[in-house]
Amino acid sequence: MSRFLVKRHQSLVPYTPGEQPQDKTYIKLNTNELPFPPSPIAQRLARLEASSLNLYSDPDQKILRETAAQVFAIDKDEIVFTNGSDEALNYAVMAYCDETTGLVFPDVTYSFYEVIADLNKVPCKTIPVKDDLSVDVGDYKELHRTIFLANPNAPSGLALKNEEIEVILKTNPDNIVVIDEAYGDFNDETCIPLIKKYDNLMIIRTFSKSYGMAGGRLGYVIADKKLIADINRLRNSGNPYCVDRMAMMAGVGALLDRSYLRSCIDKIKAIRQHSADRLRQLGFEVTDSAANFLFAKHPSYPGKDLYLDLKENGILVRHFDRPRLNDFIRISIGSMEQMQVFFDTLQQLLEVHHD
Amino acid sequence: MSRFLVKRHQSLVPYTPGEQPQDKTYIKLNTNELPFPPSPIAQRLARLEASSLNLYSDPDQKILRETAAQVFAIDKDEIVFTNGSDEALNYAVMAYCDETTGLVFPDVTYSFYEVIADLNKVPCKTIPVKDDLSVDVGDYKELHRTIFLANPNAPSGLALKNEEIEVILKTNPDNIVVIDEAYGDFNDETCIPLIKKYDNLMIIRTFSKSYGMAGGRLGYVIADKKLIADINRLRNSGNPYCVDRMAMMAGVGALLDRSYLRSCIDKIKAIRQHSADRLRQLGFEVTDSAANFLFAKHPSYPGKDLYLDLKENGILVRHFDRPRLNDFIRISIGSMEQMQVFFDTLQQLLEVHHD
Repeated sequence: MSRFLVKRHQSLVPYTPGEQPQDKTYIKLNTNELPFPPSPIAQRLARLEASSLNLYSDPDQKILRETAAQVFAIDKDEIVFTNGSDEALNYAVMAYCDETTGLVFPDVTYSFYEVIADLNKVPCKTIPVKDDLSVDVGDYKELHRTIFLANPNAPSGLALKNEEIEVILKTNPDNIVVIDEAYGDFNDETCIPLIKKYDNLMIIRTFSKSYGMAGGRLGYVIADKKLIADINRLRNSGNPYCVDRMAMMAGVGALLDRSYLRSCIDKIKAIRQHSADRLRQLGFEVTDSAANFLFAKHPSYPGKDLYLDLKENGILVRHFDRPRLNDFIRISIGSMEQMQVFFDTLQQLLEVHHD
Repeated sequence: MSRFLVKRHQSLVPYTPGEQPQDKTYIKLNTNELPFPPSPIAQRLARLEASSLNLYSDPDQKILRETAAQVFAIDKDEIVFTNGSDEALNYAVMAYCDETTGLVFPDVTYSFYEVIADLNKVPCKTIPVKDDLSVDVGDYKELHRTIFLANPNAPSGLALKNEEIEVILKTNPDNIVVIDEAYGDFNDETCIPLIKKYDNLMIIRTFSKSYGMAGGRLGYVIADKKLIADINRLRNSGNPYCVDRMAMMAGVGALLDRSYLRSCIDKIKAIRQHSADRLRQLGFEVTDSAANFLFAKHPSYPGKDLYLDLKENGILVRHFDRPRLNDFIRISIGSMEQMQVFFDTLQQLLEVHHD
């Protein structure tokens, strides 16, 4: 820290991204990336832009918004794109959180919420999840606070049903409820249709997971057009050209290629089911994940040990060194081949561990 | 605006980007883009990334920082990259401006400074430029305030010499001086070597202009490593993966291809000289621009009329509807062919105008 940093940011504790070690090649099951490349159409459209990079990207994101509007059956003024969904989450905090509204989210969720609340000096309140790590909708009624909920939630993978989310929306009519659907495409439901019914609902989504574009940095917000106008007001004040030309056109291509998206999602769901079954056979307790990862704990193999032992064997999973979570490991769903190596290694580790 | 937007942002007036009309094809001389594509090496490296977008970009930007460190003869901890330099400017305001430090900049400069100060609720003070639109260094001594200076400045294109900037750095030792070198590569000097001497100097630069990558969104900050640590603290709290994989590798390629950069800069400077001469022959007053644009006014052809007449003839330049500036038009330096069309049209307009 320099001697010039303003006082308000001196205590800031930045977000810790999942590790991206450069020392050797790992099987990376730690940051919930898709194990498949983006759609060939997305790739092609992105590549075509490389020779036109001297021109600014369209700050109005016209082609991308129009394409998305058609795909999601919404109006083009009900969507806006950002440099990843993290940027969108930050704009949502800026737009809808102050000393009066605060910010409420579950104690077990995406740890970035806490970081952006701190960045914006917004008072936070966390509500404990239940013993099974699920969110109790009853806890979120009439809070008179801005609410952030990841659905499916991370790292549990557990999802609320739309009818449960509607209870929260209805009982907090004067506050914004942000539903973070980063993993929404792996779930059986989405809240998108609800934006026509609730003007206090903001959905934040990403191309990083289901579309296989984590490295392309493309997030989006779907909400009533007045809320989208709020986000645009902030975006145009902070970083108007946030989406670059290659990401813009990769997004168009990815959106148009519905069959590729479908096939990726189907494969992930099948591997998820298969992997959850195997983990349970191996004695793990596994949450009922609706996302592209599994959250699992072994009765006698502490999460941290397992994480370290897997890492030593070339497999990266994520471990959270926090109460209630430190018994678990979070395993991103990889390809069948990657999961095969994971399970072979896991089985060997368990055998040694039992001895 | 929605009924939910927090009070502090309700009066926000967003930045107005240069127009990107979609109705027909214009000769675009309005947003200071390079009229040449990015380096072929940059293009090739960017395209190679398209198939790996499913993996996150490196939040530490290792390869890019190491490449840049070598090119700029600095340490890799003295540089960090952002999603365009606008994002970097915003982080600089967040890091170094509060009620105590405020923010000071010339009254005629990049209008985005005012917007990000407003976004961050920082008290601003503007210092009038001289009649010839140049910055008077004497006005910036011992201000005890955070200072932003674009050098070369926009839209005048006028540059301070390093020795003048050193006066400001020396007389404000306890405050940050941000030198925005967005157009620095078209100038004969850069402040980069001064970071070893002044721990209160922060240089913000971009790939949008000289590198021909406006649509790639890549900005960077060069400063003492403690200042870079400050920016990283904010970046990792707000948007840790701000640079996508394609922009990252395009940046590496663009940095390595020094001869391409050199040739682009040389061409722009030659066309700038040629264009300034012609404008003066046509009766314009032209500032002595060290950037990739010219700022010019005609004694009898009001800036707004000229802007509109050029637009009607398929040529976009920028007009600022503000006191002291509204007599001028700002003309980005295009290719020789584009400038030829511009001058042909201009000459016709002037003939009609004189009749």
